[in-house]
Amino acid sequence: MNNSTLKMSNRIRRTPFTTKVEEFGVTGFTVVNHMLLPKGFKKTVEEDYWHLREHVQIWDVSCQRQVQITGKDSELLVQKMTPRIIKNMKVNQCLYVPIIDENAGMLNDSVLLKLGNNKFWLSVADSDVLLWAKGLAIGFNLDVKVEEPNVFPLAIQGPKSEELMTLLFGEKIKSIKFFHFELFNIFGRDNVIARSGYSNQDGFEIYFNSFKDGAKLWEHIWKAGNKLNISPGSPNLIDRIEAGLISYGNDFNRENNPYECNFDNYCKLENSHDFIGKTSLEKIKIKGVNKKIRGIIFEGAPCVACEKPFPVYSTNEIKIGEITSGIFSPRLKKNIGLSMILKEYWDINNEIIVVTPDNIKRSGIITSIPFK
Amino acid sequence: MNNSTLKMSNRIRRTPFTTKVEEFGVTGFTVVNHMLLPKGFKKTVEEDYWHLREHVQIWDVSCQRQVQITGKDSELLVQKMTPRIIKNMKVNQCLYVPIIDENAGMLNDSVLLKLGNNKFWLSVADSDVLLWAKGLAIGFNLDVKVEEPNVFPLAIQGPKSEELMTLLFGEKIKSIKFFHFELFNIFGRDNVIARSGYSNQDGFEIYFNSFKDGAKLWEHIWKAGNKLNISPGSPNLIDRIEAGLISYGNDFNRENNPYECNFDNYCKLENSHDFIGKTSLEKIKIKGVNKKIRGIIFEGAPCVACEKPFPVYSTNEIKIGEITSGIFSPRLKKNIGLSMILKEYWDINNEIIVVTPDNIKRSGIITSIPFK
Repeated sequence: MNNSTLKMSNRIRRTPFTTKVEEFGVTGFTVVNHMLLPKGFKKTVEEDYWHLREHVQIWDVSCQRQVQITGKDSELLVQKMTPRIIKNMKVNQCLYVPIIDENAGMLNDSVLLKLGNNKFWLSVADSDVLLWAKGLAIGFNLDVKVEEPNVFPLAIQGPKSEELMTLLFGEKIKSIKFFHFELFNIFGRDNVIARSGYSNQDGFEIYFNSFKDGAKLWEHIWKAGNKLNISPGSPNLIDRIEAGLISYGNDFNRENNPYECNFDNYCKLENSHDFIGKTSLEKIKIKGVNKKIRGIIFEGAPCVACEKPFPVYSTNEIKIGEITSGIFSPRLKKNIGLSMILKEYWDINNEIIVVTPDNIKRSGIITSIPFK
Repeated sequence: MNNSTLKMSNRIRRTPFTTKVEEFGVTGFTVVNHMLLPKGFKKTVEEDYWHLREHVQIWDVSCQRQVQITGKDSELLVQKMTPRIIKNMKVNQCLYVPIIDENAGMLNDSVLLKLGNNKFWLSVADSDVLLWAKGLAIGFNLDVKVEEPNVFPLAIQGPKSEELMTLLFGEKIKSIKFFHFELFNIFGRDNVIARSGYSNQDGFEIYFNSFKDGAKLWEHIWKAGNKLNISPGSPNLIDRIEAGLISYGNDFNRENNPYECNFDNYCKLENSHDFIGKTSLEKIKIKGVNKKIRGIIFEGAPCVACEKPFPVYSTNEIKIGEITSGIFSPRLKKNIGLSMILKEYWDINNEIIVVTPDNIKRSGIITSIPFK
């Protein structure tokens, strides 16, 4: 028996698409927000990577749960949760927002959707932002409702996404700009479709709201996608790392502040808005940070996907970080990884040493992200 | 490849004991609180069940994360989170507490430990109570610190637990009463050891606080346990269901209130204390609930462990619930399960029908829990 079998139970929630995902040959899962996230189908990670760059894929990313905030104080609550400025946001817009606590520790990195003047969704990474938002709402006595709606994102990713989505939903799809969304009728109900996704390619996310019709939607997309060489897929580790898409829980967590995560542009300290952690963030900005996420390129035979961090050392053997997401890039023909790196060593092109699980010391350099 | 392979990553946190768990032949994991929980070793669930009832086991339950609440307002914050009365709690005591939201929806069921007059741990089931507590603390402007300490519970369970623990920690172990704890020196540091655990047997939980010494502690216990036929283990599904130990996320969730979960005795509505959801809970109490968790005994060949709910019908074919935890009990020689059951049908000994994944209709009855 495999040492890393996932024991299924009702607590690890299935999605509207899980039955289809199983039927289409899923080879493994992970768990995000108490829900199954498929990780890989019959292709190797490399085959899947090339397919994603050339064709179109369908991904069950239902685990990107929505935290729905409605009511008179909804904008106020959302603004309390992030250092980005919310007030200029337009309906139908998405915004990538760091969520921080009173110490400016990262609680999540979410995609915020503005559905109306008093209606927002936070599409969240792996932590119960729902409980954070509810706790704040009650404590501050805000006039809001905070819920997890029955919404299950299904992503269509890859260069042929627009072609496929146009076949399915008409020419209107083409008018959706990156990080914007429109409503589309699917099986008699309005559903949000956004131009977004957790890949380096063009793509869309369908925020599907009818659990019982999940298999029907999957089949509908699959049928139209056949001629475009559609494949079932999931966030691809090579593509994600190349794009520098950092992952909450993998590459950063509550111990890290937004500056360490290169979120400088999302940290607005103007007097015009107030948010939790502002005082801490101001102090951190003045003092500066001691480490930051950097790209690492390192030599040697293709390394295995990083399941446990790979330690990173300076050439004089001081531990300066650890690669928390890493893999071989068949396009760059180098191993690549993401690591928090100490300030003294974080300059681009600095030479470093990575120790992989085979205990081999590999020479490498610091690089900027995204990887070129 | 197995369809339910768990794809490992840094986000799914390893514990101080994971290396040992792997070495000792773990056959699968689940994920709780973003951390690995071993689920099964080389024995079948039945073999493991009999072993647990007769000998002693060592369980890595580090995923029972602690939410540490310290400071002047710590008791006030803890009291806000639960309908149980906290003020009479003594230092060194544990208390099982439902955690509810403003609608009296269950957010968690936790074990509360009182470490000092201004220091509490909530040992939590699978939801980020940390974020709930932090949100409330900030919103209500309470003088508390809310953190996740480096504490990793390791459970010793089974009838020979006391004998083993006495060998390891001396006669003082015997004086610990159920749901109480004492401090013990392990490798030079004080560690909490409580008489508690997620089984129907006697047992202890060591709240171990030195990550780096995890393997050393495991070996130390293993060596002493050899003569007592110690085995690695994990919460056993048969034992858990027989005991009526319901599981958050499996058998109840945020949609359920404490009365539906049979937590009537933990819901105190006196004027002497105030908590979030009190008004909702009062209304629910007056109105009564429409469903409650019941035991189900059902006929036929031994059923597989319930991974997806088994629907439960009345004899006149109305759906009245679903079994969310179910398995064959080799001791009772019947299939057993836990299900929310509609009020009209919840009387003990009522006849019902369960449909298992093999599509067989099995006759059964409603029963009280724990199973006799």
